[in-house]
Amino acid sequence: MVDVARAAGVSLKTVSRVANNVPTVSPALVERVHRAMHELGFQRNNAAAHLRSGRASATIGLIILDLANPFYSTIAAAAAEVAQRHHTQLITASSGRDPARERELALDLCERRVDGLIIVPTGDDQSYLRPEIDRGTPVVFVDRPPTGLDGDTVLIDNRDGAREAVRQLLVEGHRDIGVVTDALNTYTMAERVAGATEELLAAGADPDAHRIEVGTDDPATAGAAVAGMLDAPDPPSAIFCGNNRILTGAIEELLRRRSGVRLAGFDDFEFAHLLPYPMTVVGYDTRALGRLSAELVFQRGHDSTRALTKYVVATYLVRRGVDPGLPHEREPRVG
Amino acid sequence: MVDVARAAGVSLKTVSRVANNVPTVSPALVERVHRAMHELGFQRNNAAAHLRSGRASATIGLIILDLANPFYSTIAAAAAEVAQRHHTQLITASSGRDPARERELALDLCERRVDGLIIVPTGDDQSYLRPEIDRGTPVVFVDRPPTGLDGDTVLIDNRDGAREAVRQLLVEGHRDIGVVTDALNTYTMAERVAGATEELLAAGADPDAHRIEVGTDDPATAGAAVAGMLDAPDPPSAIFCGNNRILTGAIEELLRRRSGVRLAGFDDFEFAHLLPYPMTVVGYDTRALGRLSAELVFQRGHDSTRALTKYVVATYLVRRGVDPGLPHEREPRVG
Repeated sequence: MVDVARAAGVSLKTVSRVANNVPTVSPALVERVHRAMHELGFQRNNAAAHLRSGRASATIGLIILDLANPFYSTIAAAAAEVAQRHHTQLITASSGRDPARERELALDLCERRVDGLIIVPTGDDQSYLRPEIDRGTPVVFVDRPPTGLDGDTVLIDNRDGAREAVRQLLVEGHRDIGVVTDALNTYTMAERVAGATEELLAAGADPDAHRIEVGTDDPATAGAAVAGMLDAPDPPSAIFCGNNRILTGAIEELLRRRSGVRLAGFDDFEFAHLLPYPMTVVGYDTRALGRLSAELVFQRGHDSTRALTKYVVATYLVRRGVDPGLPHEREPRVG
Repeated sequence: MVDVARAAGVSLKTVSRVANNVPTVSPALVERVHRAMHELGFQRNNAAAHLRSGRASATIGLIILDLANPFYSTIAAAAAEVAQRHHTQLITASSGRDPARERELALDLCERRVDGLIIVPTGDDQSYLRPEIDRGTPVVFVDRPPTGLDGDTVLIDNRDGAREAVRQLLVEGHRDIGVVTDALNTYTMAERVAGATEELLAAGADPDAHRIEVGTDDPATAGAAVAGMLDAPDPPSAIFCGNNRILTGAIEELLRRRSGVRLAGFDDFEFAHLLPYPMTVVGYDTRALGRLSAELVFQRGHDSTRALTKYVVATYLVRRGVDPGLPHEREPRVG
């Protein structure tokens, strides 16, 4: 794009606008950019093919952490709907939580001339994207903020959601509250545990005096963590789970024990309302994460100079699960 | 690829092998192909960039029907693992069950020089892929066979799975068996309903005498279909659901009614074992669909002349759900 801008004697922004078919660019400028692209041998690439024949479609890339996790596929589906309204295809790839793979995928998609990127960043350095962003590729970060550079970002209000959930347990009179969480080097987990412990401290409860199990990352280890807490001399009367995989493991363990421990967790999920164990979960609009991040890609594509935008998606508490004795009774939404 | 083969004076297969870095090609041939690609101005495309710098990675594309459906995301995750073992990235896009979009996506991915395609076909004509296949792009169809051309295909044994489930209900003594299914112009649904009715006929039951509700495509319409059957003068004692979205709607309706109707369905799903309603589901290895189709892409990439392969993934019956009175008892696997 830099070469094209230089050859056409126009700004990078103009090239970007022509490539994005922004209607406000003057026909003379469009012609100059097209001629420069042609002279530079861009015939064979997709951007040029798109401009010339209209056959290859505009495309944005989405890099998620895990293809099989419904959280990310919901984000992908919502982003794809926005993309479609912009006559743009969404292609999705998974980093598998491997920073090297994220980088390889992101640069590869840029090389394939995607018109923008949405990334759930993993690892602690996204500065490799600086040259692509400078070249005019819109890049938006979702669910976790980037490190090593700043960018348009869409996050969940993790800290406030966890505070609310723990506050609910405290309001009900619980003081011995266990917290089961994934590794704290994950941004979302660190925020949730910070929110939970802030709330415990604010209520005069000493969070150190309660169990905080860190590093459970699947239902099996979460179930074992819950078992360990409940078998301890001073078991908690309530447990807060940092995500829905941990919550699933906790439910299985509590059902197995026919336990009456009060359960709360972060993330609502399909079938949660049908599970035979009552719980409070922190819900949020997962689709909004995908929708807002895709909209930011198009906004950034139309104006690379606009101020950085950070959206925070609000959370809410909702009761899920059914009492095994009353399997068909829906419980009211809280808060 | 045809141009490169002609310029290099080698077969299309050799070009394909060089592009795929197959180690058995002689260095002299590799050099000839690389020179031809260079002379034809392929410097800027990804295949050449890959050969030259090793930076852009090999990529296969996967076109599914619905990003938010865990069935497809499980296929994607399994295909991505195979791709990664071949140092190849998987990129996924969704047709949204729109044949025009499937075609646009497939041709667009080919234009972006993916090294192969896996497609869950929608609509009734995939002959648009003929030129791409002739050009040497490996294309594999998964979950549904292609129409209008033949190709490597990976399917579930839909018919046999439905037969097994209905046979189980018949063995238990049920004769009034309702069937709730999606539209029959969907290959998988047509096969499942065919299997169910075959089994009813084989048992001497007249399937016309029993309700077959066609065209429910979400939990809400499925729940309404189940309600209609149960409110009829001659309600069924057992219901077979054509997929897991229908099964979900049926469970909600049956829980709401505290019904004792025997339930069976196609597709196992997460949390099925925790739901407070006993049921029998047709399970299968969803990951095998993704794994086998990705493996076929690489096999076809290495040898475009090999015979067409059709894999059929077997099904099995498994009991899911918990009796509300015995929430922690796991039931044994059947058959």
